[in-house]
Amino acid sequence: MKTALKERKDLIMLPGPTNVPDRVMRAMTKPIINHRGPEFAALLKDIEENLKYAFQTKNDVYVLTSSGTGGVECAIGNIVNPSDKVIVPVFGVFSERMKEKVARRGGKAVEVPIEWEEAPTAEQIEQAVKKEKDAKAIAVVYNETSTGVTVRDLPKIGKIAKENDLIFMVDAISILGGDQLPIDEWGVDLCVTGSQKCLACPPGLALISVSPKAWEAVEKTAVRPYYFDLEQIREFAAKGATPFTPALPIFYALDEALQLIREEGLKERFRRHETCAKAFYKAIEAMKLKPYPNEKARSNTVIAINIPTGVDGEEFRKIMKERYKTVIAGGMGKLKASIFRIGCMGIISEAETLQTINALENTLMDMKYPVKTGTGIEAARKVFHS
Amino acid sequence: MKTALKERKDLIMLPGPTNVPDRVMRAMTKPIINHRGPEFAALLKDIEENLKYAFQTKNDVYVLTSSGTGGVECAIGNIVNPSDKVIVPVFGVFSERMKEKVARRGGKAVEVPIEWEEAPTAEQIEQAVKKEKDAKAIAVVYNETSTGVTVRDLPKIGKIAKENDLIFMVDAISILGGDQLPIDEWGVDLCVTGSQKCLACPPGLALISVSPKAWEAVEKTAVRPYYFDLEQIREFAAKGATPFTPALPIFYALDEALQLIREEGLKERFRRHETCAKAFYKAIEAMKLKPYPNEKARSNTVIAINIPTGVDGEEFRKIMKERYKTVIAGGMGKLKASIFRIGCMGIISEAETLQTINALENTLMDMKYPVKTGTGIEAARKVFHS
Repeated sequence: MKTALKERKDLIMLPGPTNVPDRVMRAMTKPIINHRGPEFAALLKDIEENLKYAFQTKNDVYVLTSSGTGGVECAIGNIVNPSDKVIVPVFGVFSERMKEKVARRGGKAVEVPIEWEEAPTAEQIEQAVKKEKDAKAIAVVYNETSTGVTVRDLPKIGKIAKENDLIFMVDAISILGGDQLPIDEWGVDLCVTGSQKCLACPPGLALISVSPKAWEAVEKTAVRPYYFDLEQIREFAAKGATPFTPALPIFYALDEALQLIREEGLKERFRRHETCAKAFYKAIEAMKLKPYPNEKARSNTVIAINIPTGVDGEEFRKIMKERYKTVIAGGMGKLKASIFRIGCMGIISEAETLQTINALENTLMDMKYPVKTGTGIEAARKVFHS
Repeated sequence: MKTALKERKDLIMLPGPTNVPDRVMRAMTKPIINHRGPEFAALLKDIEENLKYAFQTKNDVYVLTSSGTGGVECAIGNIVNPSDKVIVPVFGVFSERMKEKVARRGGKAVEVPIEWEEAPTAEQIEQAVKKEKDAKAIAVVYNETSTGVTVRDLPKIGKIAKENDLIFMVDAISILGGDQLPIDEWGVDLCVTGSQKCLACPPGLALISVSPKAWEAVEKTAVRPYYFDLEQIREFAAKGATPFTPALPIFYALDEALQLIREEGLKERFRRHETCAKAFYKAIEAMKLKPYPNEKARSNTVIAINIPTGVDGEEFRKIMKERYKTVIAGGMGKLKASIFRIGCMGIISEAETLQTINALENTLMDMKYPVKTGTGIEAARKVFHS
């Protein structure tokens, strides 16, 4: 793969995978070991402890060899039985996927349709819960990677779930480790994230937490999936192992990435993400661009921007990458050609934020969009220096 | 994970994961790239071409971010509908898993029970096919990793499947790349392997091939799994991508590992595995140990040995590892405490074979088992020097 080897690495500003610290990359080349031996058990114990810190939870946590989507399928497959009702607010590609996964399990996904620029509110969920008295769970995508929308009512929705004895399932793939998510305090029964987003680890693993309430439901599920069977995963975890061969190099990387998170501390980490996101939004406005989500719904980890009329998104991203070595993403689904998405994740700092805004500015100028040199940078600097 | 860092690496003689060449390990640290961009598409194309070579097939081939078990669940989940009958010879832990996976899909696994020391024969399968006239598929574990048994009748079973218009599904996880398996010539419709066995790549990926006949069945499957949906995988592969974020570092490693296979050539690779296996079996006999499988069923990639009476298997493996830096596996399932398993896989050569036999000899002597220095080595040397 000569094409993937560059003289200098691109800055990866995708909404995952994201830039990975060298320390974490190097961890992948640690020796192959027996995944049924004491060395692996010690590694798994380390990971588990640090995952509980990152998830802010006392619940059980597990590592799955799969993408985040596999993790969400695991959560659903272990609690949804045929004809079980799950309330799913749909406001982007990943919440659509959530609905589809419920359906493939034979469950009934009760869709709460939301405008994609908006986040679902506690009131909307409460209405649905009142209407669907026999629902079993509420499944929410906390941060819609496809639109840059964060559900700020998540703790309130957790309360509704608790009051109505519903299982609260959260897809936190593009946000956990980058913004507030105290699993236990907010009453999240099943929470899923991926290794390659705010944890700043390479892709290949899904992480999942399971509450005692979720376990009750799992145990009652008649036929669980095989590869993603939580009972079997729990059984092996108790012996310091995984039921099937783990993606060992990524486990090593995850261990290192989680260590970095402990060293920094969650509070500082969230603050850093928030500040960089604020700088992005200020710069975007200054450059006369418009974020895709409405103001209150804007994410601190995925920055979505409307592509200005007359600008070819593909061409724009090509210039960004080839001339300015900065990689951002286009849209997904119906927004494929109409938005850009920038990952504000993991090791994001002032340096990466300014390089990206600088690349945006220059590309806009290259494409004859009316913006003056330094407009975005100036606005962003104000955030960092206030 | 200080415990996993050693001053000198152990020799990993497990039946997977196995020793990984440095070139392949280093490939994992190549830069993170956009998994929806042209660089990843080029990487995927490279892998696909070389996978077709390793699989000896013109069928479609795909890479899944999961262990091999996930790959087998993918094969089953995409063709087995509720109440579909699948003939499964059961002669070890992995064929038991195959049966269980069929059952969890709502299918009917028709078990052909076989003694675990033996491989199923074409005659046994033919009888089952005659009895179960409405079966849809035959699912065979080509190499039982749990027992060191290889199904030498596989091409004949392929013929039976073809003549009876049954889908032929093969779990080739611990053998593909280490022994004969011409997918097209033997009529294998769905074939699954893992990255961490004979391909000598780190764990984390499953590889699958899909024949036109298998595609017909996949297309008719009413509800496919989500994460393992072959139709979606095909759709994205056509665009040079995967439906969900791939475990990029292991994709890089796989690309490199497959390149090494092309450089060596399959013929030479199979010959190398066969010679080393022969040396192992000769040495085992010379040391008055006994392979677990009956003679005709013995694998060239997984060497299973009965633990001699009076020898504590756990203690034995501990000495092997701690004193002689050589890691072998114990048994699985009902054979947990009664056999050793040695991987004769991937980069296996005279050097690793002799180191392992030497470690076996020394450990036997340490444990007061009556064996004379050099007995096993002498027998093995004869194989390499004949």
